[in-house]
Amino acid sequence: MPFRSHMDVALSEARAAAERGEVPVGATLIAPDGTVVAQAGNRTRELSDPTAHAEVLVIREACAAIGSERLGGYDLYVTLEPCAMCAAAIAAARIRRVYYGASDPKSGGVAHGACVFSHPQAHHAPEVYEGISAAPAERLLRDFFAAKRRETPL
Amino acid sequence: MPFRSHMDVALSEARAAAERGEVPVGATLIAPDGTVVAQAGNRTRELSDPTAHAEVLVIREACAAIGSERLGGYDLYVTLEPCAMCAAAIAAARIRRVYYGASDPKSGGVAHGACVFSHPQAHHAPEVYEGISAAPAERLLRDFFAAKRRETPL
Repeated sequence: MPFRSHMDVALSEARAAAERGEVPVGATLIAPDGTVVAQAGNRTRELSDPTAHAEVLVIREACAAIGSERLGGYDLYVTLEPCAMCAAAIAAARIRRVYYGASDPKSGGVAHGACVFSHPQAHHAPEVYEGISAAPAERLLRDFFAAKRRETPL
Repeated sequence: MPFRSHMDVALSEARAAAERGEVPVGATLIAPDGTVVAQAGNRTRELSDPTAHAEVLVIREACAAIGSERLGGYDLYVTLEPCAMCAAAIAAARIRRVYYGASDPKSGGVAHGACVFSHPQAHHAPEVYEGISAAPAERLLRDFFAAKRRETPL
C-alpha cells in the first residue's frame, strides 16, 4: 500500500512541525516513478510567511528541482485537507492526484468553502482521495491545539 | 488620489514582467503609514515556481521584512483580479484592503469561481475595490497574449 507509506512520511513531517511550534500539517510529493521528491511541514511561523504551508513548500521545492512550473504526473500526500491557497497552487502546478488525511471544515478549500477544484477557474482538477490515515493526522492537530489552550488560559 | 499612484507602481511592475516574458501582472503593498513596502511582478517562469504570482511575492517580501505572518492594516494594489491562491494568501495575511485593476473571469478567485472571500473558511475578508486603472492593466495582458499567439501560430 504505497499511499499508506507516503502518508507516513507526511505524518512524520507534521509531527516535526508540531515540535517546532507550527500547526502540525505535513506533506510529501511523489514523482511519476514513485520517488519522494520533496517533504515538508508547515513553516509559517519560522519563516514569517503565511504562504509557507506544507503543500506550497513541497510544490516550490519540487518545481525548483526540476526547473518547471508544472508537476504533471506527480502525486501529493498531505495530512490535512488543503486550504484554498494550497488547492489553487496544486491546480496551478497540474498535480495529478491529491491524497489527504483529516477533513478541515474550518479552513479547507477542497471539500469545503471555496471548493477550489469545483470551478472552471482552477484550470486543472486533480483526482482527490480523502481520509487516508485521517485518525493520526487529526490526533496531532487536536493535541497541538489542546496544548496551546493549556499554555494560554483565558 | 493615492490609490492611482500606487496602482501606477503596480502597472510598472506588470510592464517589467511582460519584458521578462512573464504574464504581465504587477502588485505593490502599502504599509499603514503609506510607505511602499514591496513591489513585484509575476516571476513564475523565471523562478520555476507556480506560486510566484505578484501578490504572493509582495506578501512574502513584506512579511519577511517585518518578521510577521500578518499584515493587518496593509493595503495591496494589483493590476488583475487575484486568483484563488492569491486571494487565500491575502486572507491569511489579514490584508486590510485590496485594490485591483482588470477583472479576470477566466482565472479570478475574488469575484469569480471560488469567490474565496465569500466563505467563512477564509477567516478574513479584506475590503475590495475593483476597476482601478483597469484599462491599461487589460491592455498589457491583451497585447502580451496577442504577441504570444503571433510567436506560436497553429
